[in-house]
Amino acid sequence: MLRQKITPPEVASVRSSSKGKLRIIPLGGQEEVGRNMTVFEYEDNIVILDMGLQFPEEDMPGIDYIIPDTHYLKGKEKNIKAVILSHGHLDHIGAVPHLLPLLNWPPVYASKLTLTLVKKRLEESNLTKYLKAREIQSANETLVFGQMKIGFFEVSHSIMDALGIVIQTPFINVVNLGDWRYDLDPVSGPKTDFSNLAKWNTKIAPSVLMMESLGSTTDGSQLSEREVLNNIRNIIVKAPGRIIVGAFSSMIERVGQLINVAEELGKKVALDGYSMKTNMEIAKEIGYLKFKPSTLIDIKNVHDYPPQKIVIICTGAQGEDRAALMRIANGDHKWVKVEKSDTIIFDSSVIPGNERTIQRLKDSLYRQGADVIHKEIMDVHSGGHAFIEDIKLLINQVKPHYLLPIYANHYLLKEAAKVAESIGFPKERIFVLDNGSVVEIDEQSLRISKEKIPIEYIFVDGLGVGDISNVVLRDRQLMSADGMFVIIAVVDTQTGRVKGEPDIISRGFVYMKDSKDLLRQARKKIKETIIQSTIPGAEINWVYIRNNLRDKLGKFLYVKTRRRPMVLPVIVEI
Amino acid sequence: MLRQKITPPEVASVRSSSKGKLRIIPLGGQEEVGRNMTVFEYEDNIVILDMGLQFPEEDMPGIDYIIPDTHYLKGKEKNIKAVILSHGHLDHIGAVPHLLPLLNWPPVYASKLTLTLVKKRLEESNLTKYLKAREIQSANETLVFGQMKIGFFEVSHSIMDALGIVIQTPFINVVNLGDWRYDLDPVSGPKTDFSNLAKWNTKIAPSVLMMESLGSTTDGSQLSEREVLNNIRNIIVKAPGRIIVGAFSSMIERVGQLINVAEELGKKVALDGYSMKTNMEIAKEIGYLKFKPSTLIDIKNVHDYPPQKIVIICTGAQGEDRAALMRIANGDHKWVKVEKSDTIIFDSSVIPGNERTIQRLKDSLYRQGADVIHKEIMDVHSGGHAFIEDIKLLINQVKPHYLLPIYANHYLLKEAAKVAESIGFPKERIFVLDNGSVVEIDEQSLRISKEKIPIEYIFVDGLGVGDISNVVLRDRQLMSADGMFVIIAVVDTQTGRVKGEPDIISRGFVYMKDSKDLLRQARKKIKETIIQSTIPGAEINWVYIRNNLRDKLGKFLYVKTRRRPMVLPVIVEI
Repeated sequence: MLRQKITPPEVASVRSSSKGKLRIIPLGGQEEVGRNMTVFEYEDNIVILDMGLQFPEEDMPGIDYIIPDTHYLKGKEKNIKAVILSHGHLDHIGAVPHLLPLLNWPPVYASKLTLTLVKKRLEESNLTKYLKAREIQSANETLVFGQMKIGFFEVSHSIMDALGIVIQTPFINVVNLGDWRYDLDPVSGPKTDFSNLAKWNTKIAPSVLMMESLGSTTDGSQLSEREVLNNIRNIIVKAPGRIIVGAFSSMIERVGQLINVAEELGKKVALDGYSMKTNMEIAKEIGYLKFKPSTLIDIKNVHDYPPQKIVIICTGAQGEDRAALMRIANGDHKWVKVEKSDTIIFDSSVIPGNERTIQRLKDSLYRQGADVIHKEIMDVHSGGHAFIEDIKLLINQVKPHYLLPIYANHYLLKEAAKVAESIGFPKERIFVLDNGSVVEIDEQSLRISKEKIPIEYIFVDGLGVGDISNVVLRDRQLMSADGMFVIIAVVDTQTGRVKGEPDIISRGFVYMKDSKDLLRQARKKIKETIIQSTIPGAEINWVYIRNNLRDKLGKFLYVKTRRRPMVLPVIVEI
Repeated sequence: MLRQKITPPEVASVRSSSKGKLRIIPLGGQEEVGRNMTVFEYEDNIVILDMGLQFPEEDMPGIDYIIPDTHYLKGKEKNIKAVILSHGHLDHIGAVPHLLPLLNWPPVYASKLTLTLVKKRLEESNLTKYLKAREIQSANETLVFGQMKIGFFEVSHSIMDALGIVIQTPFINVVNLGDWRYDLDPVSGPKTDFSNLAKWNTKIAPSVLMMESLGSTTDGSQLSEREVLNNIRNIIVKAPGRIIVGAFSSMIERVGQLINVAEELGKKVALDGYSMKTNMEIAKEIGYLKFKPSTLIDIKNVHDYPPQKIVIICTGAQGEDRAALMRIANGDHKWVKVEKSDTIIFDSSVIPGNERTIQRLKDSLYRQGADVIHKEIMDVHSGGHAFIEDIKLLINQVKPHYLLPIYANHYLLKEAAKVAESIGFPKERIFVLDNGSVVEIDEQSLRISKEKIPIEYIFVDGLGVGDISNVVLRDRQLMSADGMFVIIAVVDTQTGRVKGEPDIISRGFVYMKDSKDLLRQARKKIKETIIQSTIPGAEINWVYIRNNLRDKLGKFLYVKTRRRPMVLPVIVEI
């Protein structure tokens, strides 16, 4: 683990007559949260920072996730000298298995934990053998690619081994913190201090600060990790029975601390949830978590100990469908049922969009009589992101020349800009980018190019990457709202008459068993419509019949039900 | 408008030898938010309080809303003496057009504004002529139904004319506040003071307090209306151009105050959004809003005035799909496009579940350069609900004997109970009910009956009420996740062979145009499966063929795509 005071790498030597130009192009992370990815391009050298994934919006049913659109890099694969991954969270590494193959496997640079997590992900897709990777073992390392020199520094976040980078060029230094927070009272490691980064902001080498801005509307400073841990410790000490903690599996550092607290109090810990167990195994394997082997027990053995001796740490605090806490709440968990003496801690913030699911999860746990503790009631969670006062402190410490707020919803980037302005940072040196914006920096100036790379959503659904079009999504939305109604009619090509009764297959529209009358009327309407659409003796226009059926039956069903199922006519010609 | 100090009606005379029993049965509002409805039953008299609707959860696609399950009242219609509506919000009156006809049109009692809004709703369903209604004109009125005597008192909420009720019986008084808040510094009307309600809590007639508990996890006290209005007023004074306020159309009182502020500052107001215009017309008609006719202008005339003279108040602050603010943000509004000098105020809290949509709406407005002000940044909204300190004050003022937290998610009811306990209210006199719980009160005691009325979700979708089953919902969910795949094969009944090529209709699964190869393979698989499912010479088992097709093609598509579309085989026999 990189645990040392931040010592930025040396300032690059400045060549006063450079003709080069640095281009910074964010391919994701500037408009919504997630799928973070930034391209740094200097002459023939490209360095990529992060390859994240984004979770779908509500109007994207069935989509697994969204990855960055990399068509800009097509034909430039040989220029890509490095993919640097700042830390091991999915919004920074999740697209790696999709994008590395697409870009001809450029070499990957990351810290130990990040790299281990990436390898795990590639393993799941059977791709590990292609990976060219180098571990960044110390924040003192530098990488050189032509005129670009990359330095690293350690950053406090909710996962260990998070790195910030400095891209040094002959005339400008770009600092990117990745996801960051201050922690002046950390549980382990040094206090966060970014004041050293100010050294890049000299007259000959002014700095650009790329600043993650997720907390730009939250007042005050992020809670110290120690304060949160103390709160949780107190709950564990006082709890009359078992403790069940719902947490993100990605919060490896916190979970590690919880295990240590439990151990210290003489309790056993059972981890549950696939990603929770995997991530902790990884962290333990590489020596990032330290506890006695006997502290961890298998979830199926929790009943071998008295309740006061048990701490369960599991996934599902966001109400994820099949995650451990959800199964416990629903009574579907094989080994754990909620007991009235249980204390259940939601050690996570609410990800926007999950509010109602989490409310229902809480309802279910409260209903079963457990004592439930969540952020609304007590500070049992601190996130990995900086708040308004942290942003002010950062800007004051780093004193950048230019500010680029990044990695958040557009409105949060604008609010981050307002925070900077509020402490006197010059407005004209703040730039809020879009995905696909091109920042051009040369010796004279920094400007946003008129050229803009068009960026599309690249949807991942099952094995398909980018094959879900808007048409498919729209169909899913339509069918989820009012269902569908397939009409199958066998028509005699000679007479234009329907043979027998038309078949109807409908799902998600009405409950078929209770709608016999509606279906009878619909069949009648189908036959009438087909008769009206054909002229005896004339050639039959099948397209016309189908359109007519769609139109007439759609209207008929709407009048009868005020619903608009997708009507799909099939004419079988015999 | 009922604007007077709360003067509770007289305590009912106590008959010491009553043998009666009061039953309180919530049919909704005890487990999730909305569809509030409570039955009070004393011998042969039933009084109903409120008939609200609830908005659907995420896993209920296409559902318009949910209404209370009233099967308990079946056969008791003649006993229903009154439907009392506490105030005009949809979670208290929204189910009226569905439930009044079902219950043989019992008489409705409500204050002027509430009644006017109910009539409007019935008008839309062409049902007004059946309504039997009586306006409650003064909080001093009482209604008597057998042993039940109903008194009213005024309550501060985010709509005018909100009423609380007291149900007096020979041995107990039940106080139900409806939705409530304190406002010690109101913009109009008297300060809220519930201390008078304490008079019901005497030894001979202890009181039950039914307390709406939506704010039971929010620290402190609800903001005063005046403070919020002052904040908004300051923004309006300083704004360089137009003001656009996104608000709930149900916040009639606030919108009225905004119009007054605008008028005072010499600005014109344009209202937009159907419900916004309707509600304001109603309030104006019945004399609840006072402003010069010239203050209000039509939205299409906003360009006739300089921007600094314009205030637009519109619907859509929750990101509702076709609401005015959404159309303005998307550039779809006929008369209003976002200008860089616009100041846009979100005068509403975020309803859980709408977070991401609102984020996107904000993104879009920020992107167009407008100055956007929302609750995260400034206190520009106060809700109609009490917070933790308000709850403590209420309990101290009213001093009830029993406490029933109501009208919120179950976990919020439990938290309200904890708040009460924290100030010494005896735990054994707090009851958290479920929908369908039966509270029985007689001279001796108050207890929750073992009998529980089973309560179902009654879904409204288009014209259908209660006809959407879980089967239909599940189908919608399935199709929205992975689409559907209809197979149409014409099979010769003699040979069991497929005639011609099988037809495939698929929506929401893959983009058909790019999937020719998959479809070709699928057709081949279909033909193979049908051949394998028939024995030459033997009778054809159509059910077996269909099941086989569903199974084999489902697996085939999953292997190829890792998606599970709904597979629907249709065999046409010729």
